[in-house]
Amino acid sequence: MSQLLDLLNQFTHQHNQNRLVYNQDWLSNQRALILLGQRNGATATVDDYGNVYLDFPGQMNDRPVATGSHMDTVKHGGRYDGLYGVLGGFCAIQQIYEQHGIPKHPLRLISFSEEEGSRFPATFTGSKYYTGTLQTEVISDKQGITFDEARRLAVTQLQQLPHVKTQRVSLPVTFTELHIEQGPRLAESHKKIGLVTGIVAQKRYEVTVHGQANHAGTTPMIQRQDAIATASALMAKLYALAAKAAEDLTFTIGEIHVSPNVSNVVAESCRFTIDCRANTDDQLTAFVTQMLQLLEQSKRTSVIETLCVSATRLSDDLRMQNAALATQMNYSYQTLFSGAGHDSQIMSSFVPTTMIFVPSEAGISHTPTEYTKSADLLMGVSLLANSLFVQANGE
Amino acid sequence: MSQLLDLLNQFTHQHNQNRLVYNQDWLSNQRALILLGQRNGATATVDDYGNVYLDFPGQMNDRPVATGSHMDTVKHGGRYDGLYGVLGGFCAIQQIYEQHGIPKHPLRLISFSEEEGSRFPATFTGSKYYTGTLQTEVISDKQGITFDEARRLAVTQLQQLPHVKTQRVSLPVTFTELHIEQGPRLAESHKKIGLVTGIVAQKRYEVTVHGQANHAGTTPMIQRQDAIATASALMAKLYALAAKAAEDLTFTIGEIHVSPNVSNVVAESCRFTIDCRANTDDQLTAFVTQMLQLLEQSKRTSVIETLCVSATRLSDDLRMQNAALATQMNYSYQTLFSGAGHDSQIMSSFVPTTMIFVPSEAGISHTPTEYTKSADLLMGVSLLANSLFVQANGE
Repeated sequence: MSQLLDLLNQFTHQHNQNRLVYNQDWLSNQRALILLGQRNGATATVDDYGNVYLDFPGQMNDRPVATGSHMDTVKHGGRYDGLYGVLGGFCAIQQIYEQHGIPKHPLRLISFSEEEGSRFPATFTGSKYYTGTLQTEVISDKQGITFDEARRLAVTQLQQLPHVKTQRVSLPVTFTELHIEQGPRLAESHKKIGLVTGIVAQKRYEVTVHGQANHAGTTPMIQRQDAIATASALMAKLYALAAKAAEDLTFTIGEIHVSPNVSNVVAESCRFTIDCRANTDDQLTAFVTQMLQLLEQSKRTSVIETLCVSATRLSDDLRMQNAALATQMNYSYQTLFSGAGHDSQIMSSFVPTTMIFVPSEAGISHTPTEYTKSADLLMGVSLLANSLFVQANGE
Repeated sequence: MSQLLDLLNQFTHQHNQNRLVYNQDWLSNQRALILLGQRNGATATVDDYGNVYLDFPGQMNDRPVATGSHMDTVKHGGRYDGLYGVLGGFCAIQQIYEQHGIPKHPLRLISFSEEEGSRFPATFTGSKYYTGTLQTEVISDKQGITFDEARRLAVTQLQQLPHVKTQRVSLPVTFTELHIEQGPRLAESHKKIGLVTGIVAQKRYEVTVHGQANHAGTTPMIQRQDAIATASALMAKLYALAAKAAEDLTFTIGEIHVSPNVSNVVAESCRFTIDCRANTDDQLTAFVTQMLQLLEQSKRTSVIETLCVSATRLSDDLRMQNAALATQMNYSYQTLFSGAGHDSQIMSSFVPTTMIFVPSEAGISHTPTEYTKSADLLMGVSLLANSLFVQANGE
């Protein structure tokens, strides 16, 4: 069972992870995963977006039971977000073959190319491509490299590896994603397993306050159009509005960009992002309506919606099956809602989908200090193995 | 008299100026100025900081009467800030020699290397080096190039030009700086000339709010340490405090830096700059005391003072002499305080110093739209020429 910990070490080296889609770190990990799968009896397929599929045989040659997660990270991310579901999924499948031999139905491990949106302004491109729901547009990273340039360069290298298949892959019969919680609820309740009922609704915006660049010493205060003065007042009001919203609602301004961003020049523009999420579409709409009213009152302020995702209900059947297994295994668990987006919310529109969470220490994630105890990581893999075993030997 | 306009065109090419100290644009302009001076009978000297001195002969070989300004600009600056005082000073000197021959005392044009602090975190390094008041420390630009590396590379190229002297240059007998106002007061009063009584006191700070990076969806709002939430509330309070301060006080937050600056990550830190100025040291101290009290109340917030300049009184004698000349010449003028820092405030501690302002359209500066009418530019040069002529032929 130390295989998972060895693999995590081998695939990360350090705590600070910068595995942005199609970059060198991403490429070397997807390559290592392909070789690992092939050495262990899997057929590897890489589609044109760099999703890696490892197919392990069943007694029947029908649609597989699938597990997996995404290979990319946020900038300065941690070791577990995404990667744990990929390597944990691999270990769970290995465990089934080692302990029980070939199951009735085949098993598939999926390592999605991209979920975080940390390099290009698009999220879930891996699972969206897989499910045929990706709308393509020309997008570039901060260095001006287009998504398609980066994609072709990286994916070609994976597809040219020996024995790698390159066709599009059909959908599995179910999808189970193992993931760290990324929030504090399991850590606080001292439960070992989280079984996910659904995933939050989410909207993102980009707000730009337009001002007039001017000299910080010679322009009388009353004659200024100071973009930071307006933006900071606006941000403070938005946070105050969010503080009065539903308890489960989250509101985050994570990015600020000022132009020209010079200490002795009155700011010409101040652009900031808004990320807000709620457990239901209605809660989110109620907040966003108030928020947009507030933004409309601000002069010289423009707002663009950059993301809109409805709340997702995951499979009740699969969750209840996992709850029964957790009880058998004597693992404490709770059901919960996911505040983070996951590939599962894309997959769930097409196949019964469920998620298994393990605790995040102090609820911290998306940073190098993200941490889950080894024992907790291994418990998640054991539950996943039992869950996949039951599914792969069922009707 | 179209010489000035030709020179301005020749030294700028476009409206957007990025002549940061020691960069390529800076270097080619200082080089062009040296050649221009030498072609017109001046001895050129370049000191180790890249200040360029053009010395024009007098009948006596004593201390010169000096004029000039700085060669550098802010990032995305305009065509007139600094450069007008250099090229306008050159034209004024030319006018004297053409119309009156060699004056009693020599004349000197100074093109200071740096005043804006736009590349390295240090301001007035040119005039401070000249007056022997520069305190050196190891500083770097945003690319990690140290001040000394950049300086040596650029200055060596100037010092190796034919007939260029490289020794340190003694102080002049007086210093007169011609400059655009950079504020709206002349434009509003429809006066053509501003005669400067003094320069504002100025303090700058860097404020850092420390938070905890975390996931924007999974971290409950009440458990966050969101650096942007704290910083935006703080900035809004600071602007409100400034709105209640003395009328002449200016307060600017011009720079914001967020880490990691990703839309779906709660900010780990938010750093911003403060620039505040007032006509007297007492006014500034009164405001800054309140401001620091407010900042002290904010948790996880650290403050560093990065600049402290006392209010400067310029020469009353020289200003009154220029007022008399302006009256003779039928130029409308007003006295005013400078809200911007200038090399004159460094020079004034050592030699009688005065400044002549011309109107800035709409008071706009430190941006490519900075503009002064040609007729106003030429009026400033004419007054400067008469002022230097009187000084260079006096006792």
